[in-house]
Amino acid sequence: MIPTISIVGRSKAGKTILIEKLIPEIKRRGYRVATIKHDVHNFDIDKEGKDSWRHAQAGAEVVFISCPAKLAMIKKARKELSLNKIITSFIDEVDLILTEGYKRETYPKIEVFIKKGQAKLLCEGKSDNLVAIVSDQVINKDIPCFDFNETVKIVDFLEKKFIKVKNEGIPTVNLRVNGKEIRIKGFIRNIMSKTVLGMISSLKGIENPKQVEIKIRVEGR
Amino acid sequence: MIPTISIVGRSKAGKTILIEKLIPEIKRRGYRVATIKHDVHNFDIDKEGKDSWRHAQAGAEVVFISCPAKLAMIKKARKELSLNKIITSFIDEVDLILTEGYKRETYPKIEVFIKKGQAKLLCEGKSDNLVAIVSDQVINKDIPCFDFNETVKIVDFLEKKFIKVKNEGIPTVNLRVNGKEIRIKGFIRNIMSKTVLGMISSLKGIENPKQVEIKIRVEGR
Repeated sequence: MIPTISIVGRSKAGKTILIEKLIPEIKRRGYRVATIKHDVHNFDIDKEGKDSWRHAQAGAEVVFISCPAKLAMIKKARKELSLNKIITSFIDEVDLILTEGYKRETYPKIEVFIKKGQAKLLCEGKSDNLVAIVSDQVINKDIPCFDFNETVKIVDFLEKKFIKVKNEGIPTVNLRVNGKEIRIKGFIRNIMSKTVLGMISSLKGIENPKQVEIKIRVEGR
Repeated sequence: MIPTISIVGRSKAGKTILIEKLIPEIKRRGYRVATIKHDVHNFDIDKEGKDSWRHAQAGAEVVFISCPAKLAMIKKARKELSLNKIITSFIDEVDLILTEGYKRETYPKIEVFIKKGQAKLLCEGKSDNLVAIVSDQVINKDIPCFDFNETVKIVDFLEKKFIKVKNEGIPTVNLRVNGKEIRIKGFIRNIMSKTVLGMISSLKGIENPKQVEIKIRVEGR
C-alpha cells in the first residue's frame, strides 16, 4: 500500500492550508504526492454544455477527458467510495497520499486544531489512529504536536515514519508466461503484488494472505 | 478487454450528438457505458480557489474529490496518456467504452460524416479500422452506413458485433491463497485475468501469453 495520511480537523481549522504547505516540501525531497479531498456535499466540477457533461447527462457511468497535459475522470457512484477503494482502484506511481477529511476511516491521521471556537480534539479515541497534531497551541498528548509553520519538521516526521518504510516488505513476485520465467523487480514488482493482493482482499474468506498463486489459461489463441 | 469503439469525424460533424443518442439506447438494454473524450487542447475543469485546485497548484500529481454521489480525478500527465493506458488503469465495471475522437489509435471506429464542407472520409485507410459510418448521405463502402436517426440499428450493430462477444473467451483463473483454492468466477474472473494480462502486456518480450503463473510470497507476516 502507498502510505496514506489523513489531514482532519473541524471546518476552517486550516486543513487545506496545511496540505498546501506540506506538498512543496515533500516534492522538494523527490517524492510524488496524490491528494484525496472528502466532500460531504455534492460537488460540481463539470461545466454545463461541455461534451463531457453531455456524455454524463446522456447516462455514461464514467466520463474521461484527456489532453496532452492531463486526464480528468468523473465517475458516478451508487454509494460513496471508500478510501481503500479509491486508492487501490485509481492510484499508482506516487510515494504518499494525503487526504483532506476522512475522519471516520482508519488511516493514520494528523489533526489540525485551532483554539478559536474549539474545545477539544476531534480525534480523541484510540481507534482514531491520530499520529500527530498541528495546532496554534501546545497540546499535551503522547504524540508529536507541531506549529503551523513547522513544515520541515512535519515532513521529517512523515518521511521517517511513513514514506521511508514503504519499500520494506514488498512481496516477492515470480511470473511465468508460457512456461518462461520473467524477471520482475522494483516498481513492477510493487504494482503487481499490490494489485493482486488488492484484488483478492475483497474476496470472501481471505485474511492475511502469505502465499498467492494464480494460473491463467487463455483458450483458443 | 472491455469493447471500445471510437466515434471519430471532423469538427462539428456531430460526434457528441451521436454519443448522446447512443448511450440511452445502450443503457435501455442493460449495459453500462464509459466515455473518453479526446481533447487536443488543454481543457480546464477544476475551479480556481477550490480545495482540490489548491492541492494541484501546490504540486499534487493527482487530485481526487469524493462525495457520496461521485468521484472526480484530475491527474497531471508528463505526456498524453494512450487510450490503452486510460482503459487498463482506470476503467472497470462497464460493458462498453465509447471514445469521442482518437482517430490515430487502433480501436474500431465509427466515422460521423456530413456532406457540408467535407470532401471525403477521415478514415480511408485499412489501418484506420473503420467498422461503420453515420452520415447524412449514402456512402458506398463495404461497411454499414447508418442515418443519424437510426439509433436502434446502430446499437443493434454494436451489441451484436462488440458487446455480446465480450464474454466469449474470458480466460480461466485458478487462485490459491496460503495453499487453499479460492473459487473465481464471473466479474472477478474477468477482472483478475484482464488485470494480470494487462499488467504483463507492458513488459518487454511478452507476446501472445497463453499461460501465466504468478507466485507472491509476503515475508514476515
